[in-house]
Amino acid sequence: MGPLPRTLELFYDVLSPYSWLGFEVLCRYKNIWNISLQLRPTFIAGIMKDSGNQPPALLPRKAQYLRNDVRLLGQHVQVPVQFPKDFFSVILEKGSLSAMRFLTAVSMEHPEMLEKVSRELWMRVWSRDEDITEPQSILAAAEKAGMPSEQARGLLEKISTPKVKNKLKETTEAACKYGAFGLPITVAHLDNQTHVLFGSDRMELLAHLLGEKWMGPVPPATNARL
Amino acid sequence: MGPLPRTLELFYDVLSPYSWLGFEVLCRYKNIWNISLQLRPTFIAGIMKDSGNQPPALLPRKAQYLRNDVRLLGQHVQVPVQFPKDFFSVILEKGSLSAMRFLTAVSMEHPEMLEKVSRELWMRVWSRDEDITEPQSILAAAEKAGMPSEQARGLLEKISTPKVKNKLKETTEAACKYGAFGLPITVAHLDNQTHVLFGSDRMELLAHLLGEKWMGPVPPATNARL
Repeated sequence: MGPLPRTLELFYDVLSPYSWLGFEVLCRYKNIWNISLQLRPTFIAGIMKDSGNQPPALLPRKAQYLRNDVRLLGQHVQVPVQFPKDFFSVILEKGSLSAMRFLTAVSMEHPEMLEKVSRELWMRVWSRDEDITEPQSILAAAEKAGMPSEQARGLLEKISTPKVKNKLKETTEAACKYGAFGLPITVAHLDNQTHVLFGSDRMELLAHLLGEKWMGPVPPATNARL
Repeated sequence: MGPLPRTLELFYDVLSPYSWLGFEVLCRYKNIWNISLQLRPTFIAGIMKDSGNQPPALLPRKAQYLRNDVRLLGQHVQVPVQFPKDFFSVILEKGSLSAMRFLTAVSMEHPEMLEKVSRELWMRVWSRDEDITEPQSILAAAEKAGMPSEQARGLLEKISTPKVKNKLKETTEAACKYGAFGLPITVAHLDNQTHVLFGSDRMELLAHLLGEKWMGPVPPATNARL
Protein backbone atom coordinates (compact mmCIF):
# COMPACT_ATOMS: atom_id res chain seq x y z
CA MET A 1 0.00 0.00 0.00
CA GLY A 2 1.25 3.45 -0.89
CA PRO A 3 0.78 6.64 1.10
CA LEU A 4 -2.74 7.80 1.98
CA PRO A 5 -4.39 10.00 -0.64
CA ARG A 6 -4.32 13.74 -0.04
CA THR A 7 -7.67 15.46 0.26
CA LEU A 8 -8.59 18.12 -2.29
CA GLU A 9 -11.70 20.21 -1.80
CA LEU A 10 -13.15 21.89 -4.88
CA PHE A 11 -15.50 24.76 -4.04
CA TYR A 12 -17.58 25.58 -7.11
CA ASP A 13 -20.79 27.10 -8.43
CA VAL A 14 -22.37 26.06 -11.73
CA LEU A 15 -22.76 29.73 -12.61
CA SER A 16 -18.98 29.97 -12.97
CA PRO A 17 -17.47 28.72 -16.26
CA TYR A 18 -13.97 28.58 -14.77
CA SER A 19 -15.43 26.33 -12.05
CA TRP A 20 -16.54 23.97 -14.79
CA LEU A 21 -13.08 23.87 -16.37
CA GLY A 22 -11.42 23.21 -13.00
CA PHE A 23 -14.04 20.59 -12.13
CA GLU A 24 -13.48 18.61 -15.34
CA VAL A 25 -9.70 18.69 -15.00
CA LEU A 26 -9.85 17.47 -11.39
CA CYS A 27 -12.46 14.83 -12.21
CA ARG A 28 -10.04 13.50 -14.85
CA TYR A 29 -7.08 13.46 -12.47
CA LYS A 30 -8.89 12.02 -9.46
CA ASN A 31 -8.20 8.50 -10.73
CA ILE A 32 -4.65 9.29 -11.82
CA TRP A 33 -3.24 11.23 -8.88
CA ASN A 34 -3.27 9.85 -5.35
CA ILE A 35 -6.00 12.22 -4.18
CA SER A 36 -9.42 12.13 -2.62
CA LEU A 37 -11.51 14.76 -4.38
CA GLN A 38 -14.32 16.33 -2.38
CA LEU A 39 -16.83 18.34 -4.38
CA ARG A 40 -18.24 21.30 -2.45
CA PRO A 41 -21.26 23.06 -3.96
CA THR A 42 -20.90 26.74 -3.00
CA PHE A 43 -22.95 29.89 -3.61
CA ILE A 44 -20.88 32.33 -5.65
CA ALA A 45 -23.07 35.37 -4.94
CA GLY A 46 -22.39 34.82 -1.24
CA ILE A 47 -18.64 34.79 -1.88
CA MET A 48 -18.76 38.01 -3.89
CA LYS A 49 -20.83 39.76 -1.23
CA ASP A 50 -18.69 38.61 1.69
CA SER A 51 -15.38 39.48 -0.01
CA GLY A 52 -16.55 42.78 -1.49
CA ASN A 53 -15.46 41.59 -4.93
CA GLN A 54 -17.29 42.44 -8.16
CA PRO A 55 -18.06 40.02 -10.98
CA PRO A 56 -15.23 40.62 -13.48
CA ALA A 57 -17.67 40.98 -16.36
CA LEU A 58 -18.87 44.31 -14.94
CA LEU A 59 -15.74 45.90 -16.39
CA PRO A 60 -16.39 46.04 -20.16
CA ARG A 61 -12.85 45.20 -21.20
CA LYS A 62 -12.77 42.20 -18.85
CA ALA A 63 -16.14 41.03 -20.14
CA GLN A 64 -14.80 41.06 -23.68
CA TYR A 65 -11.66 39.21 -22.66
CA LEU A 66 -13.57 36.60 -20.63
CA ARG A 67 -15.71 35.68 -23.58
CA ASN A 68 -12.69 34.90 -25.70
CA ASP A 69 -10.69 33.33 -22.88
CA VAL A 70 -13.48 30.92 -21.99
CA ARG A 71 -13.86 29.94 -25.65
CA LEU A 72 -10.13 29.24 -26.12
CA LEU A 73 -9.83 27.42 -22.80
CA GLY A 74 -12.92 25.36 -23.59
CA GLN A 75 -11.24 24.11 -26.77
CA HIS A 76 -7.97 23.44 -25.00
CA VAL A 77 -9.51 21.74 -21.95
CA GLN A 78 -12.08 19.98 -24.17
CA VAL A 79 -15.18 21.16 -22.36
CA PRO A 80 -18.08 22.29 -24.60
CA VAL A 81 -18.47 25.67 -22.92
CA GLN A 82 -20.44 28.40 -24.76
CA PHE A 83 -21.36 31.85 -23.53
CA PRO A 84 -25.10 32.29 -22.93
CA LYS A 85 -26.62 34.91 -25.22
CA ASP A 86 -27.92 37.12 -22.45
CA PHE A 87 -24.95 36.73 -20.15
CA PHE A 88 -25.89 39.49 -17.72
CA SER A 89 -29.40 38.21 -17.17
CA VAL A 90 -28.12 34.67 -16.57
CA ILE A 91 -25.37 35.68 -14.17
CA LEU A 92 -26.62 38.77 -12.41
CA GLU A 93 -30.41 38.39 -12.48
CA LYS A 94 -31.27 34.70 -12.57
CA GLY A 95 -28.34 33.41 -10.53
CA SER A 96 -27.85 29.92 -9.14
CA LEU A 97 -29.46 29.74 -5.70
CA SER A 98 -31.94 26.91 -6.40
CA ALA A 99 -29.43 24.96 -8.46
CA MET A 100 -26.75 25.14 -5.76
CA ARG A 101 -29.26 24.24 -3.06
CA PHE A 102 -30.26 21.24 -5.15
CA LEU A 103 -26.63 20.18 -5.53
CA THR A 104 -26.24 20.64 -1.78
CA ALA A 105 -29.15 18.28 -1.20
CA VAL A 106 -27.58 15.82 -3.66
CA SER A 107 -24.26 16.04 -1.78
CA MET A 108 -26.02 15.28 1.49
CA GLU A 109 -28.21 12.39 0.40
CA HIS A 110 -26.79 10.98 -2.85
CA PRO A 111 -23.16 12.11 -2.99
CA GLU A 112 -22.42 9.46 -5.61
CA MET A 113 -24.60 11.49 -8.03
CA LEU A 114 -23.02 14.88 -7.34
CA GLU A 115 -20.45 14.86 -10.14
CA LYS A 116 -22.95 13.90 -12.82
CA VAL A 117 -25.72 16.25 -11.74
CA SER A 118 -23.26 19.15 -11.46
CA ARG A 119 -22.03 18.46 -14.99
CA GLU A 120 -25.57 18.36 -16.39
CA LEU A 121 -26.37 21.73 -14.80
CA TRP A 122 -23.24 23.20 -16.42
CA MET A 123 -24.26 21.59 -19.73
CA ARG A 124 -27.56 23.46 -19.46
CA VAL A 125 -26.39 26.92 -18.49
CA TRP A 126 -22.86 27.05 -19.90
CA SER A 127 -23.21 24.94 -23.02
CA ARG A 128 -26.79 24.88 -24.31
CA ASP A 129 -27.90 28.26 -22.90
CA GLU A 130 -30.79 26.70 -21.00
CA ASP A 131 -32.41 27.78 -17.77
CA ILE A 132 -31.26 26.35 -14.42
CA THR A 133 -33.59 28.26 -12.12
CA GLU A 134 -36.97 26.59 -12.69
CA PRO A 135 -37.87 23.29 -10.95
CA GLN A 136 -38.37 21.56 -14.34
CA SER A 137 -34.90 22.68 -15.43
CA ILE A 138 -33.28 21.20 -12.36
CA LEU A 139 -35.26 17.99 -12.70
CA ALA A 140 -34.27 17.71 -16.35
CA ALA A 141 -30.57 17.98 -15.39
CA ALA A 142 -31.00 15.33 -12.70
CA GLU A 143 -32.74 13.04 -15.16
CA LYS A 144 -29.97 13.46 -17.76
CA ALA A 145 -27.51 12.58 -15.01
CA GLY A 146 -29.36 9.31 -14.52
CA MET A 147 -31.16 10.08 -11.27
CA PRO A 148 -34.56 8.41 -10.89
CA SER A 149 -37.22 11.10 -11.18
CA GLU A 150 -38.82 10.25 -7.86
CA GLN A 151 -35.49 10.69 -6.11
CA ALA A 152 -34.93 14.00 -7.88
CA ARG A 153 -38.37 15.27 -6.89
CA GLY A 154 -37.72 14.26 -3.30
CA LEU A 155 -34.48 16.24 -3.23
CA LEU A 156 -36.07 19.23 -4.92
CA GLU A 157 -38.68 19.35 -2.16
CA LYS A 158 -35.92 19.64 0.38
CA ILE A 159 -34.11 22.63 -1.06
CA SER A 160 -36.02 25.11 1.06
CA THR A 161 -35.51 23.22 4.31
CA PRO A 162 -33.22 24.85 6.91
CA LYS A 163 -30.98 21.79 6.77
CA VAL A 164 -30.12 22.25 3.09
CA LYS A 165 -30.07 26.05 3.22
CA ASN A 166 -27.74 26.02 6.21
CA LYS A 167 -25.45 23.47 4.65
CA LEU A 168 -24.96 25.67 1.55
CA LYS A 169 -24.35 28.67 3.84
CA GLU A 170 -21.79 26.71 5.83
CA THR A 171 -19.93 25.62 2.71
CA THR A 172 -19.93 29.17 1.39
CA GLU A 173 -18.62 30.43 4.74
CA ALA A 174 -15.93 27.76 4.71
CA ALA A 175 -14.77 28.99 1.29
CA CYS A 176 -14.72 32.56 2.64
CA LYS A 177 -12.59 31.42 5.58
CA TYR A 178 -10.14 29.99 3.06
CA GLY A 179 -9.95 33.47 1.57
CA ALA A 180 -12.19 33.04 -1.48
CA PHE A 181 -13.10 36.15 -3.49
CA GLY A 182 -14.46 34.14 -6.43
CA LEU A 183 -14.79 30.53 -7.58
CA PRO A 184 -13.50 27.94 -8.10
CA ILE A 185 -11.06 27.48 -5.28
CA THR A 186 -9.17 24.24 -4.76
CA VAL A 187 -8.03 23.60 -1.21
CA ALA A 188 -5.19 21.08 -1.05
CA HIS A 189 -4.58 19.48 2.32
CA LEU A 190 -0.98 18.31 2.35
CA ASP A 191 0.83 16.73 5.27
CA ASN A 192 1.92 19.92 6.96
CA GLN A 193 0.15 22.67 5.14
CA THR A 194 -2.99 23.70 3.35
CA HIS A 195 -2.83 25.50 0.01
CA VAL A 196 -5.66 27.49 -1.50
CA LEU A 197 -5.59 27.90 -5.28
CA PHE A 198 -8.00 30.20 -7.11
CA GLY A 199 -9.26 29.58 -10.62
CA SER A 200 -8.93 26.79 -13.14
CA ASP A 201 -5.37 27.74 -14.16
CA ARG A 202 -3.38 26.57 -11.15
CA MET A 203 -3.66 22.84 -11.85
CA GLU A 204 -0.06 22.47 -13.00
CA LEU A 205 1.02 24.27 -9.81
CA LEU A 206 -1.27 21.91 -7.87
CA ALA A 207 0.48 18.90 -9.43
CA HIS A 208 3.81 20.43 -8.39
CA LEU A 209 2.59 20.90 -4.80
CA LEU A 210 1.24 17.33 -4.69
CA GLY A 211 4.39 15.88 -6.24
CA GLU A 212 2.24 14.41 -8.99
CA LYS A 213 2.78 14.53 -12.74
CA TRP A 214 1.00 17.16 -14.84
CA MET A 215 -0.01 15.79 -18.23
CA GLY A 216 -2.03 18.74 -19.47
CA PRO A 217 -5.75 19.40 -19.05
CA VAL A 218 -6.66 16.21 -20.95
CA PRO A 219 -4.48 13.47 -19.45
CA PRO A 220 -4.21 10.22 -21.43
CA ALA A 221 -6.80 7.85 -19.98
CA THR A 222 -4.38 4.96 -20.38
CA ASN A 223 -2.33 6.33 -17.54
CA ALA A 224 -5.23 6.07 -15.16
CA ARG A 225 -4.74 4.05 -11.96
CA LEU A 226 -8.25 2.66 -12.32
CA MET B 1 14.12 25.74 -43.81
CA GLY B 2 10.97 25.39 -41.72
CA PRO B 3 8.02 27.78 -41.55
CA LEU B 4 8.63 31.40 -40.56
CA PRO B 5 8.55 32.05 -36.82
CA ARG B 6 5.32 33.49 -35.41
CA THR B 7 5.59 36.86 -33.70
CA LEU B 8 4.72 37.10 -30.02
CA GLU B 9 4.52 40.50 -28.36
CA LEU B 10 4.88 40.59 -24.58
CA PHE B 11 3.53 43.80 -23.05
CA TYR B 12 4.91 44.15 -19.51
CA ASP B 13 5.76 46.49 -16.67
CA VAL B 14 8.44 45.72 -14.08
CA LEU B 15 5.99 46.74 -11.35
CA SER B 16 3.97 43.60 -12.12
CA PRO B 17 5.22 40.32 -10.62
CA TYR B 18 3.07 38.25 -12.97
CA SER B 19 4.75 40.10 -15.84
CA TRP B 20 8.07 38.84 -14.52
CA LEU B 21 6.85 35.25 -14.42
CA GLY B 22 5.46 35.44 -17.95
CA PHE B 23 8.64 37.16 -19.18
CA GLU B 24 10.94 34.44 -17.82
CA VAL B 25 8.82 31.62 -19.23
CA LEU B 26 8.75 33.22 -22.69
CA CYS B 27 12.46 34.05 -22.58
CA ARG B 28 13.09 30.34 -21.90
CA TYR B 29 10.85 29.19 -24.75
CA LYS B 30 11.99 31.74 -27.32
CA ASN B 31 14.84 29.43 -28.34
CA ILE B 32 12.73 26.28 -28.17
CA TRP B 33 9.54 27.28 -29.96
CA ASN B 34 9.53 28.69 -33.48
CA ILE B 35 8.70 32.21 -32.34
CA SER B 36 10.05 35.72 -32.58
CA LEU B 37 9.56 37.31 -29.15
CA GLN B 38 9.14 41.07 -29.07
CA LEU B 39 9.44 42.69 -25.65
CA ARG B 40 7.19 45.72 -25.25
CA PRO B 41 7.83 47.89 -22.18
CA THR B 42 4.41 49.27 -21.15
CA PHE B 43 3.13 51.57 -18.40
CA ILE B 44 0.76 49.63 -16.16
CA ALA B 45 -0.75 52.70 -14.47
CA GLY B 46 -1.81 53.90 -17.93
CA ILE B 47 -3.52 50.55 -18.61
CA MET B 48 -5.40 50.64 -15.31
CA LYS B 49 -6.57 54.20 -15.90
CA ASP B 50 -7.65 53.62 -19.47
CA SER B 51 -9.53 50.39 -18.72
CA GLY B 52 -11.10 51.58 -15.46
CA ASN B 53 -9.64 48.57 -13.66
CA GLN B 54 -8.36 48.64 -10.08
CA PRO B 55 -5.14 47.03 -8.84
CA PRO B 56 -6.28 43.67 -7.43
CA ALA B 57 -4.42 44.26 -4.16
CA LEU B 58 -6.91 46.98 -3.22
CA LEU B 59 -9.34 44.24 -2.23
CA PRO B 60 -7.94 42.86 1.07
CA ARG B 61 -8.76 39.23 0.33
CA LYS B 62 -7.16 39.44 -3.10
CA ALA B 63 -4.07 41.10 -1.61
CA GLN B 64 -3.68 38.22 0.83
CA TYR B 65 -4.15 35.66 -1.92
CA LEU B 66 -1.72 37.40 -4.30
CA ARG B 67 1.04 37.32 -1.73
CA ASN B 68 0.77 33.57 -1.40
CA ASP B 69 0.12 32.93 -5.08
CA VAL B 70 3.20 34.86 -6.16
CA ARG B 71 5.33 32.97 -3.61
CA LEU B 72 4.11 29.55 -4.78
CA LEU B 73 4.37 30.44 -8.46
CA GLY B 74 7.86 31.86 -7.91
CA GLN B 75 8.98 28.48 -6.55
CA HIS B 76 7.28 26.58 -9.34
CA VAL B 77 8.47 28.84 -12.17
CA GLN B 78 11.89 29.19 -10.50
CA VAL B 79 11.97 32.97 -10.37
CA PRO B 80 13.27 34.49 -7.10
CA VAL B 81 10.24 36.73 -6.57
CA GLN B 82 9.66 38.20 -3.08
CA PHE B 83 7.01 40.65 -1.99
CA PRO B 84 8.40 44.08 -1.08
CA LYS B 85 7.81 44.95 2.58
CA ASP B 86 5.86 48.10 1.90
CA PHE B 87 3.92 46.79 -1.05
CA PHE B 88 1.43 49.64 -1.29
CA SER B 89 4.09 52.34 -1.28
CA VAL B 90 6.07 50.51 -3.98
CA ILE B 91 3.08 49.88 -6.23
CA LEU B 92 0.71 52.76 -5.65
CA GLU B 93 2.98 55.62 -4.62
CA LYS B 94 6.40 55.11 -6.18
CA GLY B 95 5.29 53.43 -9.38
CA SER B 96 7.38 52.64 -12.43
CA LEU B 97 7.27 55.64 -14.77
CA SER B 98 11.03 56.39 -14.90
CA ALA B 99 11.94 52.70 -15.05
CA MET B 100 9.56 52.02 -17.94
CA ARG B 101 10.72 55.15 -19.79
CA PHE B 102 14.29 53.93 -19.35
CA LEU B 103 13.37 50.50 -20.73
CA THR B 104 11.64 52.25 -23.61
CA ALA B 105 14.85 54.14 -24.37
CA VAL B 106 16.77 50.85 -24.16
CA SER B 107 14.29 49.23 -26.57
CA MET B 108 14.78 52.10 -29.04
CA GLU B 109 18.56 52.38 -28.96
CA HIS B 110 19.97 49.13 -27.57
CA PRO B 111 17.25 46.49 -28.01
CA GLU B 112 19.82 43.74 -27.50
CA MET B 113 20.07 44.85 -23.84
CA LEU B 114 16.34 45.01 -23.13
CA GLU B 115 15.90 41.52 -21.73
CA LYS B 116 18.78 41.82 -19.29
CA VAL B 117 18.00 45.34 -18.07
CA SER B 118 14.32 44.43 -17.57
CA ARG B 119 15.36 41.40 -15.52
CA GLU B 120 17.68 43.48 -13.32
CA LEU B 121 14.93 45.98 -12.60
CA TRP B 122 12.64 43.12 -11.53
CA MET B 123 15.47 41.72 -9.41
CA ARG B 124 15.63 45.08 -7.61
CA VAL B 125 11.94 45.73 -6.98
CA TRP B 126 10.47 42.22 -6.90
CA SER B 127 13.31 40.23 -5.39
CA ARG B 128 15.60 42.40 -3.25
CA ASP B 129 13.05 45.08 -2.30
CA GLU B 130 15.18 47.88 -3.71
CA ASP B 131 14.14 51.18 -5.23
CA ILE B 132 13.64 51.53 -9.00
CA THR B 133 12.59 55.18 -9.12
CA GLU B 134 15.86 57.07 -8.49
CA PRO B 135 18.40 57.64 -11.28
CA GLN B 136 21.11 55.77 -9.32
CA SER B 137 18.76 52.78 -8.95
CA ILE B 138 18.14 52.59 -12.68
CA LEU B 139 21.84 53.01 -13.44
CA ALA B 140 22.69 50.23 -10.97
CA ALA B 141 20.27 47.87 -12.74
CA ALA B 142 21.75 48.77 -16.13
CA GLU B 143 25.26 48.18 -14.81
CA LYS B 144 24.31 44.77 -13.39
CA ALA B 145 22.89 43.93 -16.79
CA GLY B 146 26.29 44.64 -18.29
CA MET B 147 25.57 47.99 -19.92
CA PRO B 148 28.54 50.38 -20.02
CA SER B 149 27.85 53.20 -17.56
CA GLU B 150 28.33 55.94 -20.15
CA GLN B 151 25.72 54.31 -22.37
CA ALA B 152 23.33 54.00 -19.43
CA ARG B 153 23.77 57.65 -18.48
CA GLY B 154 23.13 58.66 -22.07
CA LEU B 155 19.86 56.71 -22.13
CA LEU B 156 18.82 58.07 -18.75
CA GLU B 157 19.21 61.62 -20.07
CA LYS B 158 16.76 60.80 -22.82
CA ILE B 159 13.89 59.53 -20.68
CA SER B 160 12.22 62.94 -20.50
CA THR B 161 12.44 63.62 -24.21
CA PRO B 162 9.17 63.63 -26.18
CA LYS B 163 10.48 60.81 -28.35
CA VAL B 164 10.83 58.38 -25.45
CA LYS B 165 7.73 59.57 -23.59
CA ASN B 166 5.62 59.25 -26.72
CA LYS B 167 6.96 55.81 -27.51
CA LEU B 168 5.93 54.53 -24.06
CA LYS B 169 2.52 56.15 -24.53
CA GLU B 170 2.12 54.53 -27.93
CA THR B 171 3.02 51.09 -26.59
CA THR B 172 0.59 51.50 -23.70
CA GLU B 173 -2.13 52.59 -26.14
CA ALA B 174 -1.37 49.59 -28.34
CA ALA B 175 -1.87 47.29 -25.33
CA CYS B 176 -5.18 49.05 -24.60
CA LYS B 177 -6.29 48.51 -28.18
CA TYR B 178 -5.61 44.81 -27.70
CA GLY B 179 -8.03 44.97 -24.75
CA ALA B 180 -5.57 45.06 -21.85
CA PHE B 181 -6.97 45.73 -18.36
CA GLY B 182 -3.73 44.69 -16.63
CA LEU B 183 -0.33 43.21 -17.45
CA PRO B 184 1.25 41.11 -18.78
CA ILE B 185 -0.52 40.45 -22.03
CA THR B 186 0.92 38.22 -24.71
CA VAL B 187 -0.27 38.93 -28.24
CA ALA B 188 0.24 35.95 -30.53
CA HIS B 189 0.15 36.70 -34.25
CA LEU B 190 -0.79 33.48 -35.99
CA ASP B 191 -1.38 33.04 -39.70
CA ASN B 192 -5.02 34.01 -39.75
CA GLN B 193 -5.73 35.37 -36.33
CA THR B 194 -4.38 37.28 -33.39
CA HIS B 195 -4.84 35.98 -29.85
CA VAL B 196 -4.50 38.10 -26.73
CA LEU B 197 -3.68 36.22 -23.54
CA PHE B 198 -3.70 37.92 -20.14
CA GLY B 199 -1.46 36.92 -17.25
CA SER B 200 1.38 34.47 -16.79
CA ASP B 201 -0.89 31.42 -16.60
CA ARG B 202 -1.92 31.02 -20.22
CA MET B 203 1.41 29.72 -21.49
CA GLU B 204 0.22 26.13 -21.88
CA LEU B 205 -2.77 27.47 -23.84
CA LEU B 206 -0.31 29.57 -25.89
CA ALA B 207 1.67 26.42 -26.74
CA HIS B 208 -1.59 24.78 -27.82
CA LEU B 209 -2.46 27.74 -30.07
CA LEU B 210 1.05 27.77 -31.57
CA GLY B 211 1.05 24.00 -32.07
CA GLU B 212 4.21 23.84 -29.96
CA LYS B 213 5.02 21.53 -27.07
CA TRP B 214 4.49 22.68 -23.50
CA MET B 215 7.17 21.32 -21.18
CA GLY B 216 6.24 23.20 -18.02
CA PRO B 217 7.49 26.60 -16.86
CA VAL B 218 11.10 25.35 -16.71
CA PRO B 219 11.70 23.52 -19.99
CA PRO B 220 14.79 21.29 -20.17
CA ALA B 221 17.58 23.37 -21.69
CA THR B 222 18.77 20.35 -23.63
CA ASN B 223 15.72 20.57 -25.85
CA ALA B 224 16.70 24.03 -27.00
CA ARG B 225 17.10 24.63 -30.73
CA LEU B 226 20.12 26.82 -30.06
